[in-house]
Amino acid sequence: MFIDDAYAHLCSLSHAGLGGTYPNPNVAAAIYSADGKLIADGFHNRAQSADHAEVVALKKAGAAARGATMVISLEPCAHTGTTPPCAQAIIDAGISQVIYAITDPNPIAAGGAQLLTAAGITVKHQKSAELEFIQRAWLTKQLLGRPLMIWKVAMTLDSKVAASDGTSQWISGPESRDDVQVMRAQSDAIVIGTNTAIIDNPHLVPRGHTARPVRIVCGEQVVPPTHNVFDEQARTITVKSKSIPELMKVLSDEGFNQVLVEAGPTLGSALMATGNIDELIIYQAPKLLGAGKEFVNHLGISTLADHIGLELISAAQFGGDTKSHYRIVKGR
Amino acid sequence: MFIDDAYAHLCSLSHAGLGGTYPNPNVAAAIYSADGKLIADGFHNRAQSADHAEVVALKKAGAAARGATMVISLEPCAHTGTTPPCAQAIIDAGISQVIYAITDPNPIAAGGAQLLTAAGITVKHQKSAELEFIQRAWLTKQLLGRPLMIWKVAMTLDSKVAASDGTSQWISGPESRDDVQVMRAQSDAIVIGTNTAIIDNPHLVPRGHTARPVRIVCGEQVVPPTHNVFDEQARTITVKSKSIPELMKVLSDEGFNQVLVEAGPTLGSALMATGNIDELIIYQAPKLLGAGKEFVNHLGISTLADHIGLELISAAQFGGDTKSHYRIVKGR
Repeated sequence: MFIDDAYAHLCSLSHAGLGGTYPNPNVAAAIYSADGKLIADGFHNRAQSADHAEVVALKKAGAAARGATMVISLEPCAHTGTTPPCAQAIIDAGISQVIYAITDPNPIAAGGAQLLTAAGITVKHQKSAELEFIQRAWLTKQLLGRPLMIWKVAMTLDSKVAASDGTSQWISGPESRDDVQVMRAQSDAIVIGTNTAIIDNPHLVPRGHTARPVRIVCGEQVVPPTHNVFDEQARTITVKSKSIPELMKVLSDEGFNQVLVEAGPTLGSALMATGNIDELIIYQAPKLLGAGKEFVNHLGISTLADHIGLELISAAQFGGDTKSHYRIVKGR
Repeated sequence: MFIDDAYAHLCSLSHAGLGGTYPNPNVAAAIYSADGKLIADGFHNRAQSADHAEVVALKKAGAAARGATMVISLEPCAHTGTTPPCAQAIIDAGISQVIYAITDPNPIAAGGAQLLTAAGITVKHQKSAELEFIQRAWLTKQLLGRPLMIWKVAMTLDSKVAASDGTSQWISGPESRDDVQVMRAQSDAIVIGTNTAIIDNPHLVPRGHTARPVRIVCGEQVVPPTHNVFDEQARTITVKSKSIPELMKVLSDEGFNQVLVEAGPTLGSALMATGNIDELIIYQAPKLLGAGKEFVNHLGISTLADHIGLELISAAQFGGDTKSHYRIVKGR
């Protein structure tokens, strides 16, 4: 079906947009002729231009947009922000039909569908679970007023992130670590604790990327300024506190959509225990230690019925490791 | 291809044989006409008869065996044990070709292929990874002089088998627990510690089965004779000791091929630390506790390089749980 193919195309465009749109949503748009041929497409990429996805596609299409159908992952905005409203640009370009997957929940920007309809454009809202999933970070931010928080952990089969002598490199294999580079590139910011910054000394900028993601170092220990997390490759924000509300305020104020938490047990567990983790990604290496540092601790749970409940989103294998992606469905 | 289809058929027959053949191997046999049609088949089932798989199939085939091809998972035995040698039965039945997957490593029973060849039968040895996998328990016993030991654990994502107040029912979901019933039925014996016998009070006989598997209760605590593990549904052996060598001697002397270990952390870790676990099956429930009883402990490992190394055999989902089946490839 036309719309399935068009949405699949938007999914692939949106994947390319991940990590490059905050504080804006990660929108993709494609323009099709009346007989279903792709005329032009685009996704929002703040590093290149302030143009929203719709305008990127319209500029590419030029006069060919007249009478065409535009398929968009999100309802076009109706307000003037950094750029004029996309809805007006669509009207001006002479698009005759708009199909979008997600209604804009943002009260400031919403109303695009009404504007288009009033201008005589046929507007259809057709949902897509895949596009909603790709957009879930920004949607979470609209709903909760804070970014989607994903905690990523590499651990043994007995959930250890380090042996008892502190050795931890490498628990997961090279294929898993390559996949982490992809996740970092798809995130707006990465949170680590000062302990991780000092001991592991990561620089967190994925290979082949510059200027992103923003690095957040949280905690009270002093990280030497020569450490990798302070290199010039991307911006670094220091939150000199153990206060979770303080950290969350910084993340929210910055307008991040998606934050990857690469913290150790102390910070990670504190975020989890306060309901500030939405998803958990576990790389589980086929190793046993029997003793060492647990990936999570002190959640304040003493009986099974009070467990934090999760739901598997997806599972995959990377080399000898398994990767399991969960969402939290029953918090503390 | 003929042999692929025939071996697939033997796999399915062998699955039905699991848990019902010890101390004998779990062999399946099928007899095909010259044009590749299935004439008869069989697998060893000690509860029904002492007949080996070859003889089960030959008795079904009767005169139709003359000039036919027999496909067998294991090289036919050449010695007289409880029953006369299968190789002789094959010769007597007039089989003209034999194809087998696994060479008999048992010095007492080996030599079947030679016997057949000497009698003018065409003999082919064609390996099959699938049939070797199904037969790995008995093959392990030939190699190590003790059964294949599979440790099965149901745990949370943070590898807890109980919360800190001791609650543990149920960590895994009903789909996982149904799958455990299947594994129990495929095992010759199940080992638990006295602590598990007292606290969880399991009877361990899978629904729909009687008289198997043999239950082994190991440890120094006194289990009340009214507890389920001592019910009449199957035989129970008590090993009144914490000694791992003593336990392993009982398991070896009994001639079990495959033993399922459903022990808690103390006994399980002791078996693991002494190299007496070959495979690990983890049901991981999408739950977090942050505290509680670890599934494994005191392996005597303090640095990452000394980890016990495993390899994923297979992964599956049961309801909301994941099941991961590993073999140990780097022990202590």
